[in-house]
Amino acid sequence: MIVQTMREFGSHRSCIRDLFDYGLRKAREIGAENVYDYSLGNPSVPAPAAVKDAILATLESHSSVAIHGYTPASGAPDARLAVAEDLCRRYDAKIRPENLFFTCGAAPALVSALHALAVEQSEFLLLAPFFPEYAVFVTAAGGKPVIVPADTETFSLDIAAIERHLTAHTQAVIVNSPNNPSGVIYSAAELEALAALLCRKSAEYAHPIYIIADEPYRELTYDGVEVPFLPHIYADTIICYSYSKSLSLPGERIGYVCVPDTATDSEELYFAIAGAARACGHVCAPSLMQRVIALCAEVRPDIATYDQNRQTLYHALTEYGFRCIKPHGAFYMLVEAPDGDAAAMSERAKKLNLLIVPGADFGVPSFCRLSTCVSPDMILRSLPAFRALMETYRK
Amino acid sequence: MIVQTMREFGSHRSCIRDLFDYGLRKAREIGAENVYDYSLGNPSVPAPAAVKDAILATLESHSSVAIHGYTPASGAPDARLAVAEDLCRRYDAKIRPENLFFTCGAAPALVSALHALAVEQSEFLLLAPFFPEYAVFVTAAGGKPVIVPADTETFSLDIAAIERHLTAHTQAVIVNSPNNPSGVIYSAAELEALAALLCRKSAEYAHPIYIIADEPYRELTYDGVEVPFLPHIYADTIICYSYSKSLSLPGERIGYVCVPDTATDSEELYFAIAGAARACGHVCAPSLMQRVIALCAEVRPDIATYDQNRQTLYHALTEYGFRCIKPHGAFYMLVEAPDGDAAAMSERAKKLNLLIVPGADFGVPSFCRLSTCVSPDMILRSLPAFRALMETYRK
Repeated sequence: MIVQTMREFGSHRSCIRDLFDYGLRKAREIGAENVYDYSLGNPSVPAPAAVKDAILATLESHSSVAIHGYTPASGAPDARLAVAEDLCRRYDAKIRPENLFFTCGAAPALVSALHALAVEQSEFLLLAPFFPEYAVFVTAAGGKPVIVPADTETFSLDIAAIERHLTAHTQAVIVNSPNNPSGVIYSAAELEALAALLCRKSAEYAHPIYIIADEPYRELTYDGVEVPFLPHIYADTIICYSYSKSLSLPGERIGYVCVPDTATDSEELYFAIAGAARACGHVCAPSLMQRVIALCAEVRPDIATYDQNRQTLYHALTEYGFRCIKPHGAFYMLVEAPDGDAAAMSERAKKLNLLIVPGADFGVPSFCRLSTCVSPDMILRSLPAFRALMETYRK
Repeated sequence: MIVQTMREFGSHRSCIRDLFDYGLRKAREIGAENVYDYSLGNPSVPAPAAVKDAILATLESHSSVAIHGYTPASGAPDARLAVAEDLCRRYDAKIRPENLFFTCGAAPALVSALHALAVEQSEFLLLAPFFPEYAVFVTAAGGKPVIVPADTETFSLDIAAIERHLTAHTQAVIVNSPNNPSGVIYSAAELEALAALLCRKSAEYAHPIYIIADEPYRELTYDGVEVPFLPHIYADTIICYSYSKSLSLPGERIGYVCVPDTATDSEELYFAIAGAARACGHVCAPSLMQRVIALCAEVRPDIATYDQNRQTLYHALTEYGFRCIKPHGAFYMLVEAPDGDAAAMSERAKKLNLLIVPGADFGVPSFCRLSTCVSPDMILRSLPAFRALMETYRK
């Protein structure tokens, strides 16, 4: 008498975690320096010094009861104000503290938004390549995940393909830019085309089709590429954000949902998201970390290492003959399997102690994902293995 | 096209929060010292010094990436080990780290357990008086909350009433001891009677009826009364725990689910709970706080203030003529409305700037709940108002 879907969610391990655990075992066997683990997206750059300063300052200047007590479910007033002001300044946006709902990271932010919108028969578009957990979250919310295949030439938004997958039941499209796993950033022109399509279809179906913008990598961009502020382009946008990557705080579970005033039924939607969070056991986001955010809302990460890693890998692998998708954001890179079979490529790589994730779960079965949030040193040590991997295809 | 149940969960405010907000407004009007707020269960005692020491030691001795990185979804190995060892020592129990799943507090622990068990048509027994969020959590998980009325004479377990509410669809009984709102601790004899009933009924219905033990107040007991370790009494027990009250860390969202090996299908159940947590957006419990728990698993709270508050209030209110249920645990006390109408009693009290919560949402509509986790000073200042409240019934 146990719910079998939940048991499957709990016992079906992701191939990312499987590879990571394999790497730990292998490291004990042959030494950590001989395993080249590109599996996990765990930030390798320390949190900015301001984070530790903020923790220490908070511990010194506030009482224990004030630091560790409950905050309102939506977040501490000073944290909400600091984030709203930062968004207004950076994007010339009109975000009020009341538009923000703090959560234990981006995952519960997404889950709450999905539960708020998962009316009967609802469908949610996942644009390949996509973060595999989206499918779990949509299914668990009672919605149907509808996968739009990737344009594996450009990895840009395929507007025609998206249109083919929209129906009267579509409640939202999840847009993840900078993208995990491709590192691609959708341009303003692409997003404007998507907005035009969704406006037209929302009118046709007589209900809003929201964009759920999953933006944990918003601050991680290279080559001067900027991430457009989506609510400026499409009014019915819900932003889900996390400080996991931008402040290197993945374990601390701190993020938020932003429902701008421009969104249709924004107040009702906000309450539904708050209610969905409550139904999932949300009481408040971790209170000490909310104080850190209140003090660090304007702090940006030092991404020089990620940038260097990206370039080293892109140039080396391209030189060896691999087709790589050049990332302009996040800390991942897609590499195409020379014979189109990424599952086999991951297995071949494993024999060289190179751990790269096959892309099937991301909706791109001919690509492997490399997490580039690793040590520059490991990258240099791993290059001969990549060269050897390409050799296996030339025999 | 917004899910209306979620909107209602988000916009229907609890009467506790309403009273608390009223108190904040009133305090601005007439001065905080003239408002006697007994509404919220926010610990008034600071976290033990060991908590701050553990945070500082962690910040000094570990790298940022190690402190703030992802832990396994189930929890950091050292935190799970420390808690398992503590449980084994205290209760002579056989709890392994693998029986523990860390969560963002007790609420998501409960939600995960409920989702794991909420098969079609499932029913969950709530024993009045009960924490009102149980009804939200059960409903949201797709189960049916079945309320067993309180024995308002003794507030002990009413085994005959529980039996009348058990059906073939009952999946679990939520047991909350020390109890919020009564402060009552169920004795070993009562729990043994419950266990005998559930064993008999599990056999009759040919499936286990679990006890979900919600135990955030386990460490808050007075008069030498002990909280029995439920898995010793009933094998099919799932424990949900939180450090919110025992370490005064309610805002930090740290707790766990424990599925002992004795529980039927314990491994499958554990995976289902892990899967339900994942489906609700759980990635890991806050990582810095997991390190605090690893260092503070044996730390117990200083409850002298709560004990003193309890005695002061119980004796004064009894002297004024109120019938109070003497609490032996937690930090709440139930006071009976002299005319049986607790909603009206709360309104009368409000006119005296005394904020006490009517018990309807807790399943005891003739009682008001007082949170006794307040300052002893406020209690002394409030006593004339309680006396005046009784006077209003004598006119």
